Amino acid sequence: MLDAPEVEELTPPVRTLMGPGPSDVHPRVLRAMGTPLVGHLDPTFIDLMDEVQELLRYAFQTENQWTIPISGTGSAAMEAAFANLVEPGDTVLVPTNGYFGYRMASMAERAGGSVVTVDAPWGKPLDPADVQDAFDTHQPDVFGFVHAETSTGVRQPNVSDLTAIAHAHDAFVIADTVTSLGGVELRVDAWDIDVAYSGGQKCLSCPPGASPLTLSDRAMDRVLSRENPVRSWYLDLSQLEGYWGDDRSYHHTAPITNVYALREALRLVAEEGIEARWNRHRRVAQSLVDGLADIGLERYADEEYWLPSLNTVSVPDHVDDGQIIDRLLNEYDLEIAGGLGDLAGDVFRIGCMGHSARPANVQYLLAALDDTLEIETPKTQ
Amino acid sequence: MLDAPEVEELTPPVRTLMGPGPSDVHPRVLRAMGTPLVGHLDPTFIDLMDEVQELLRYAFQTENQWTIPISGTGSAAMEAAFANLVEPGDTVLVPTNGYFGYRMASMAERAGGSVVTVDAPWGKPLDPADVQDAFDTHQPDVFGFVHAETSTGVRQPNVSDLTAIAHAHDAFVIADTVTSLGGVELRVDAWDIDVAYSGGQKCLSCPPGASPLTLSDRAMDRVLSRENPVRSWYLDLSQLEGYWGDDRSYHHTAPITNVYALREALRLVAEEGIEARWNRHRRVAQSLVDGLADIGLERYADEEYWLPSLNTVSVPDHVDDGQIIDRLLNEYDLEIAGGLGDLAGDVFRIGCMGHSARPANVQYLLAALDDTLEIETPKTQ
Repeated sequence: MLDAPEVEELTPPVRTLMGPGPSDVHPRVLRAMGTPLVGHLDPTFIDLMDEVQELLRYAFQTENQWTIPISGTGSAAMEAAFANLVEPGDTVLVPTNGYFGYRMASMAERAGGSVVTVDAPWGKPLDPADVQDAFDTHQPDVFGFVHAETSTGVRQPNVSDLTAIAHAHDAFVIADTVTSLGGVELRVDAWDIDVAYSGGQKCLSCPPGASPLTLSDRAMDRVLSRENPVRSWYLDLSQLEGYWGDDRSYHHTAPITNVYALREALRLVAEEGIEARWNRHRRVAQSLVDGLADIGLERYADEEYWLPSLNTVSVPDHVDDGQIIDRLLNEYDLEIAGGLGDLAGDVFRIGCMGHSARPANVQYLLAALDDTLEIETPKTQ
Repeated sequence: MLDAPEVEELTPPVRTLMGPGPSDVHPRVLRAMGTPLVGHLDPTFIDLMDEVQELLRYAFQTENQWTIPISGTGSAAMEAAFANLVEPGDTVLVPTNGYFGYRMASMAERAGGSVVTVDAPWGKPLDPADVQDAFDTHQPDVFGFVHAETSTGVRQPNVSDLTAIAHAHDAFVIADTVTSLGGVELRVDAWDIDVAYSGGQKCLSCPPGASPLTLSDRAMDRVLSRENPVRSWYLDLSQLEGYWGDDRSYHHTAPITNVYALREALRLVAEEGIEARWNRHRRVAQSLVDGLADIGLERYADEEYWLPSLNTVSVPDHVDDGQIIDRLLNEYDLEIAGGLGDLAGDVFRIGCMGHSARPANVQYLLAALDDTLEIETPKTQ
């Protein structure tokens, strides 16, 4: 027999979460997580699933019937989108202007797709003219783009222009809305997006584990008429249809508690009103950006495509970003993040999402960052 | 703009969960779910991941380094096992004696494997002689079996005999331990199992969402030397190695709260002691079986391969199983389940798992079932 390990009672530090996610969870959502469970086939849970779908449609601003939480974190919803839409032999167009375009490429390839790219530098949005060129050259079947790029703090403007180009070529559009849903203007139906996915732990301020996905009827028709089965059983939407659709037949056990939490997080969205919530994020993030400028830190992304939920800030020349991040965490219990990929070392990433998008959090961050920057922090080479 | 839906505060009924899972969650685990989050790359979360791995090794009775929770419910851990171990062209041997063998087949095929079967009737375990024959005939690369079949209430005895046959043929063994881990004797190392997966919501009494998986070094070597990438990005263990291994590099956002809960559920296992816990499940389930016999309900599975955590009971001829199940739920807030697949209509499935494996739950169930059976319940045709 192996001996039983001795592990102490759970006592994590109380952090203020201003990084790229998770954000601070609202107390009502934490309480929902502590609710005793009913079974995943209990009639009361089935009713609750209907409510979650209705609330998700509101957050996405869509009437799509196929609007459900996927049983995993944001990347599971992302893979559900690509694994179901892409069949072997399909051409898939993805962007190269941030970390998550590369993840799209990897998922599309694993689904059997051939990947082609539309290029823009990290830190810039896609130019519709470049998307048009890529469509004319490659005639892709599926086009993925990132509405809110967490690695660069860039919001893709002109979404309707991109979807119009794709639909003129009979392609399907998949939008990464992980860092926009519930915090930044997003209109799935008005912008004619075919498929959008998100995560819970960003602007919805929900613990990760059940992740929003929406598909138009046209996209779902494509999934249901695939020639080859989806390469993941767990994420196969043609089977999930049985559980989330009219049949309510068993597919897999849903993460019941995470669905409780998502429901409560989405109730908070509905109570605040989605437009009021977008405005709050913009207003609070603007005060963050102004305050950062006051202490000598400049926003990295241009105003035109600024992403209020995720603010990239240039690291000053004389500053070691890792030291600042560690000091904020260790001395202030405050989480922010450094750059990813091409922007590693060049930017700080400061989230302003959901329940973290509050003046109190911003004021605390500005004070802590100001204090921390004043200490000399020579770059280690 | 779509209008905001009005959805009431979360108030699910308080059920007593004696079905095939979820089981009743221990109050300490529910409390852990309400803990404010730290980030998934926070150094304190990294330490906590080490603790969860150590606790999981104890529950599995293994020294396998690769012992982690997968970021999804039990079927995600199941698919992680098959998607990583099976490469296109591999032959995969699966059983036909229950619902979950068919799920193994579907997952193996989606991974590119060719499926062959070893047969036994629903409600019987595999016979090692049949497994030997299947190996001699098909020379499979991977062999999946179900240690604790939730659809039939059958425990596979002779596990060491099965693994010895497989290893004599240089095959890898994947064990479904969804309904045994933490409740029924399971010794991954002593029984020479290469890969085992489980769920949280059965004998661990944890809300579903982070699901145990363990792989031997030999199995992980196979994963790391694959010729083709795993067909799921989300479940690719060669990438998860970066997060759960020494690097601690970002792959995807872990379901932080579910990991908190799993840690607490596993602490309860360590405090009780794994052998004491197996004995408790056996003892409490025996009192359930005895009490069921007293009210005229016979256990379906033979004593020799009885599965204490999931008790199948024959539905008497004159009884409509669906009516009984509905009445227990609606009048007693008590969940049990009917049969699945070949056993639909023939059996009740009564769980006795984790925090639900208590005398109080058993006494309540017996009293409620006795009352319910006394009401005339003509079978609807």
